[in-house]
Amino acid sequence: MSLVIVGSVAFDTIETPRERKEKIVGGSCTYCSLAASYFTRPGIVAVIGEDFPEATIDFLRKRKIDLKGLKVVPGGKTFHWQGRYGDDPNQRETVRTDLNVFQDFRPEIPPSYRKADILFLANIDPDIQEAILKQVDKPRLTAMDTIGLWINSKREAFLRVLRGVDIFFANDEEVRMLTGERNLVIGVHRILELGPKYVVAKKGEHGVLVLGREFVFGMMAYANARVVDPTGAGDTFAGGFLGYLDKIGRFGPREIRRAAAEGTVMASFAIEDFGIDRFLTLKPREIEERLKILKSWTAF
Amino acid sequence: MSLVIVGSVAFDTIETPRERKEKIVGGSCTYCSLAASYFTRPGIVAVIGEDFPEATIDFLRKRKIDLKGLKVVPGGKTFHWQGRYGDDPNQRETVRTDLNVFQDFRPEIPPSYRKADILFLANIDPDIQEAILKQVDKPRLTAMDTIGLWINSKREAFLRVLRGVDIFFANDEEVRMLTGERNLVIGVHRILELGPKYVVAKKGEHGVLVLGREFVFGMMAYANARVVDPTGAGDTFAGGFLGYLDKIGRFGPREIRRAAAEGTVMASFAIEDFGIDRFLTLKPREIEERLKILKSWTAF
Repeated sequence: MSLVIVGSVAFDTIETPRERKEKIVGGSCTYCSLAASYFTRPGIVAVIGEDFPEATIDFLRKRKIDLKGLKVVPGGKTFHWQGRYGDDPNQRETVRTDLNVFQDFRPEIPPSYRKADILFLANIDPDIQEAILKQVDKPRLTAMDTIGLWINSKREAFLRVLRGVDIFFANDEEVRMLTGERNLVIGVHRILELGPKYVVAKKGEHGVLVLGREFVFGMMAYANARVVDPTGAGDTFAGGFLGYLDKIGRFGPREIRRAAAEGTVMASFAIEDFGIDRFLTLKPREIEERLKILKSWTAF
Repeated sequence: MSLVIVGSVAFDTIETPRERKEKIVGGSCTYCSLAASYFTRPGIVAVIGEDFPEATIDFLRKRKIDLKGLKVVPGGKTFHWQGRYGDDPNQRETVRTDLNVFQDFRPEIPPSYRKADILFLANIDPDIQEAILKQVDKPRLTAMDTIGLWINSKREAFLRVLRGVDIFFANDEEVRMLTGERNLVIGVHRILELGPKYVVAKKGEHGVLVLGREFVFGMMAYANARVVDPTGAGDTFAGGFLGYLDKIGRFGPREIRRAAAEGTVMASFAIEDFGIDRFLTLKPREIEERLKILKSWTAF
């Protein structure tokens, strides 16, 4: 195991224009590790309550995800997020957040995780991200994600973490929020001055733009006609991206490009069903097929 | 000459957040024919007044654009459009439109244009597009563009033209307006049922999505840090796209993909300066270089 993912394992209540799902399994760490599990054997660091379904734990285990860093709080309640999507799947509104066991979460990295090659700080309080960063022996690659909430409410802590990572996963709105710059290319170049070597700007249905100081890669989203639930698309993208890099063990421009394609494919599956349901049946062959299709859709 | 472009040659007054330009040369036909002139020798059908600058006419001639179909109305005033861009270059507002010589324009195709291989009906009143369509001998390829105004105000005429073309250039907003469908992939497939073989959905900074019944191609926009004036980007894209197809003389999936890349490159130049100014210095070598760069930015 050489990819460690820190983030949330959660319940999500999701409202789309067509349907509502009450307290289904979600969380950045869940989506990300499931996606990564098709490429490598990730380990996770997260916290849940006793109310979390045993069946999901079993499923994560079946996907060979290392759960040594998954803490169960006796009598505790799992973190719960409630969100609403309008007609534009790129826009969502947070209706409610119950921190529950996250309230007092002081993450501890299991000793066996300390020598991870790749560390991913998925979306979570930047104070927690920083605490984790201090517990690992220099990973070969460190990446982070965040949300607008942290950029606004914990900017200093967020910027400290940003300085310490190689790859920053952000959506285009967050790039604008952080830099105040409308032009995404200019905005991302400002962020590159703050520390990371690469910024992966996720644009939902418009695909992804990966920029480094001397690097550009742009790719369409998979042309999905069927978008059921966009929740977790970004975390799934990151899981495919980093899982692929961990499998290959090299992080050069060529690998980064392919990683973005693998992430795109993984995200395209996640949104086809609510929560993590699509992973219950997803076969490696389907991933390979979709990658080939994506290649034929983008090569000229 | 085997590409004929029908559209507007105009004066544009343009306000961006940084600058205002009064009555500079613009128009769908102008942008499109200039872009196409790097690949082939397009002929244009348009109307201007006596106030139109002789220097621009000379420049179009120098670019080997066939002006036999350019009608000059004695004593007439050239069509004038005024628009305003906010911070989002994908959004613009029409402040004012002076039809002038367009008011009574009854376009006539010069006899030498009638056997055009490719006919492009750039954005213009669909009644005019329809009249033109009747004057040509079955071109090998017919394409059209439009704006929301015509979709709303002359829907029936627009739909008749749409039924008669092979390629429909639209922006993503127009796809939504026409179909009422938020998912671009679904929306475009509805439009494919209305006649065209391909829909080229232009998404500004997010690139382009070309869909056919059994065809998908998606491409990022060129990662321009310098966007001075987005006006004409779509017309320039179409000019590069169709100019390339005319040069190659084949319209298969492989050529369509490459055409979208050529269009992307041409549009990336047009937006780097106000109006058609960038074309005054643009060299074929610069186009070739940018195409290579775009390839390296998109291949995986």
